[in-house]
Amino acid sequence: MESTAPKTPDLTSAERPRTTAHGDRTRRQILRRAVDIASAQGLEGLTIGSLAKELGMSKSGLFAHFGSKEELQLAVVDEAAVIFAENVVEPAFEAPEGVARLYALMDHWVGYVDESVFPGGCFWSKVESEFSARSGVVRDKIVELTSEYIKAMQADVENAKRRGELRDDADAAQLTFEFGAYVQGCNLASQLHGDRAAFGRARLGIRRRIEDAATDKGKKALAAYIKG
Amino acid sequence: MESTAPKTPDLTSAERPRTTAHGDRTRRQILRRAVDIASAQGLEGLTIGSLAKELGMSKSGLFAHFGSKEELQLAVVDEAAVIFAENVVEPAFEAPEGVARLYALMDHWVGYVDESVFPGGCFWSKVESEFSARSGVVRDKIVELTSEYIKAMQADVENAKRRGELRDDADAAQLTFEFGAYVQGCNLASQLHGDRAAFGRARLGIRRRIEDAATDKGKKALAAYIKG
Repeated sequence: MESTAPKTPDLTSAERPRTTAHGDRTRRQILRRAVDIASAQGLEGLTIGSLAKELGMSKSGLFAHFGSKEELQLAVVDEAAVIFAENVVEPAFEAPEGVARLYALMDHWVGYVDESVFPGGCFWSKVESEFSARSGVVRDKIVELTSEYIKAMQADVENAKRRGELRDDADAAQLTFEFGAYVQGCNLASQLHGDRAAFGRARLGIRRRIEDAATDKGKKALAAYIKG
Repeated sequence: MESTAPKTPDLTSAERPRTTAHGDRTRRQILRRAVDIASAQGLEGLTIGSLAKELGMSKSGLFAHFGSKEELQLAVVDEAAVIFAENVVEPAFEAPEGVARLYALMDHWVGYVDESVFPGGCFWSKVESEFSARSGVVRDKIVELTSEYIKAMQADVENAKRRGELRDDADAAQLTFEFGAYVQGCNLASQLHGDRAAFGRARLGIRRRIEDAATDKGKKALAAYIKG
């Protein structure tokens, strides 16, 4: 999965107008708050003016970090990718390669929605829906990053096949479609209908789909990991 | 399912300021266009001013139909429910009761997303995400109507159980969670990633989940309906 894991955005890009470690910390703090706001309200409502008001900062202070609304939106999306990597992709690497790592990736993914890493629900679900019918660089960035997440799932499926833990005829595209749908489904059920049982349903669906596609070796490896 | 099917909103409500058949037709035409716009851009961007501009009407002309932005939003949600009933709920009643009708409901549901009844993707996916972290009467209406759709799926599952087509231990909540997730999943995959194969994956997932939970009688009834 190493090669397909989401890239950690280069937050030290020289293009950005800051020069000190302090400025870097401030920038990250601003972005974390902006990701929280966008997870609830979407990115389009996030202007430099509204964010400055929310943070009790001057608009000119924010302009020193982000030159435009679009630059702010792109930086927020990059920051959300860092949060996703920290909460989902990296912890999954602690599981043994194969079906265990595939399950771990999805389990952490559901957990990251469940634990409300973002107060308004999953940042990605919100902005994917918000930008689904738009065009432009912000949409392009969202498509690029979420495509990486789909590839990360597919890479784990292929790895599990190579290890003889999933059957050769297991359909990676079908499995990853269903996994992605369960993650979206539990976010919406929880946020809109207050249905917290949906997280358990998403995990059960993921486990069953892996079991359905697994060899005996894979079933044993999955059971050992979940019992673990 | 009769009792749990989405209610057709009362478009002749006396509270609304119109008195003629011509006015009623005009109102419906305005609302159809507004549903299209909201399916792409969301409801919050839909103001009386922006809609008037889009339709080439005067703002005062629109105010005669809708007294406020909120009244317009509620009317748009009601109109989207009429479209959903016409395209999904009512056609499913043509299938025989049991697993066939359950599959038909979901098949029409995927079809209604696939055929782009709404140019910007599924209206409900868009507004569910948009209002997931909001409060107020528009959100309440969206929750009420989408809850009816979940109940419609659950009623079909229970009907299929009573007819001995699904096993007694089939988990209606799990099944309907997964069905709802597949529908959301294919809308997003298509809209954001241009992945039209997702519609087939959603249908395959729905069919397999029904088959997994079906009795022999149910499997035969489902195969006969799909072969149809």
